Amino acid sequence: MSIPEPPPGTPVPEQDERPPDCQDAGPGDVPTTHARHGYLSSNHKADYLRRLRRIEGQARGLQRMIEEEKYCIDILTQVSAMTSALQSVALGLLDDHLDHCVAAAVTNGGDEAEEKLKEASKAIARLVRS
Amino acid sequence: MSIPEPPPGTPVPEQDERPPDCQDAGPGDVPTTHARHGYLSSNHKADYLRRLRRIEGQARGLQRMIEEEKYCIDILTQVSAMTSALQSVALGLLDDHLDHCVAAAVTNGGDEAEEKLKEASKAIARLVRS
Amino acid sequence: MSIPEPPPGTPVPEQDERPPDCQDAGPGDVPTTHARHGYLSSNHKADYLRRLRRIEGQARGLQRMIEEEKYCIDILTQVSAMTSALQSVALGLLDDHLDHCVAAAVTNGGDEAEEKLKEASKAIARLVRS
Amino acid sequence: MSIPEPPPGTPVPEQDERPPDCQDAGPGDVPTTHARHGYLSSNHKADYLRRLRRIEGQARGLQRMIEEEKYCIDILTQVSAMTSALQSVALGLLDDHLDHCVAAAVTNGGDEAEEKLKEASKAIARLVRS
Repeated sequence: MSIPEPPPGTPVPEQDERPPDCQDAGPGDVPTTHARHGYLSSNHKADYLRRLRRIEGQARGLQRMIEEEKYCIDILTQVSAMTSALQSVALGLLDDHLDHCVAAAVTNGGDEAEEKLKEASKAIARLVRS
Repeated sequence: MSIPEPPPGTPVPEQDERPPDCQDAGPGDVPTTHARHGYLSSNHKADYLRRLRRIEGQARGLQRMIEEEKYCIDILTQVSAMTSALQSVALGLLDDHLDHCVAAAVTNGGDEAEEKLKEASKAIARLVRS
Repeated sequence: MSIPEPPPGTPVPEQDERPPDCQDAGPGDVPTTHARHGYLSSNHKADYLRRLRRIEGQARGLQRMIEEEKYCIDILTQVSAMTSALQSVALGLLDDHLDHCVAAAVTNGGDEAEEKLKEASKAIARLVRS
Repeated sequence: MSIPEPPPGTPVPEQDERPPDCQDAGPGDVPTTHARHGYLSSNHKADYLRRLRRIEGQARGLQRMIEEEKYCIDILTQVSAMTSALQSVALGLLDDHLDHCVAAAVTNGGDEAEEKLKEASKAIARLVRS
């Protein structure tokens, strides 16, 4: 999904205070869906997609192992590997989020900074406890 | 991988000491692959497959979220949900394994009991640490 | 809490079916407190005590670090080390429990076997999720 | 370890760009030891100390349970409770660190911001994986 170029002659919109790293989709954006975030460089995006496709493949592999009634311990080893792969994705996403969205909000200060920090803290707690 | 039917006229092999719950595939079975284990009742098997298909769907949903650059925290929430679902599958499989394979080995005693207990203990450590 | 010596002349009780590894304290034992379990060899017991004393020391060290307002990340590193040490103790205790109490109950079979397996499974789930 | 008062007549040092929340001890501070950090309000500090004293007590309680050979599962329940208490302390400290030290570094920008974010990310990874 690429950002549509504005037609020529469109007046340049006033600059959002927030840097482009974490901006919402602009007019028409429904805040709760946060339709679009530029926090992912295209490099990182491709990397996450590749890793998640592999994780999807692991989920299919596990189904095959259950189907064929493979040895339980071997299945558990695969589940542990898949859990670790998921955790790595989560930690990577969290880093990107801290480096871009949270850092941008902190630079701007105010309520949004506080809100973003609180939100990140809850996400970290969920990761630590899951 | 299905168990090959013995050709007609094959003498019925002597019964394995172990209960059917955890037996290997018998003649032709390669020990390291543990081709087939009866530790899964067909009920449980269908349940695990259903849960793993859902987990596979979650992995695809995450790819879509990355593709559409959804809000990072929302993606992390989905990753946490998926991790919890995977952990539940792992705990269920471990229970089935303790209840059937390990319990059967313990009942028979000897080296196999010790080996199965050690193996289960390592799988638990991997789960706790992952 | 020590086991009271039976008065002299007390008839020797009939042997419990269960091996000494996991037996309760016998007459006078209050079931819910499980006053005494022989699942711990004296070697293991000394080892657990040594490790828990070190963990207690880590808890005191953390208080000192907070008191002196040491750098937060250094405190977190110590907390992670302490958590890992606790997990190792838990995994060791669980192994001892599976190898002795659960294995003994399984050998005897019946309701107790089932109950012990269920109880172990819940303890494992608590460890995995904490 | 307290910050030595400057002798009377010492010129007031120029203000550090960073807010007082996360500043190092100033002249004489060895960067790697980060001798003193003001990221802890006295309220939070008292709260962490209280919680760590309780955790220390739990470590002593566990020694007593091992000493008295309490039922293994009951000991494991206490270990899980203690692990959760430790995790809560870690999450609280991490929040304070993000809200003060990391936020201050980000506001100042530059290499230190990047370094603090990287350092926080590693601490989070250690927590998630321990």
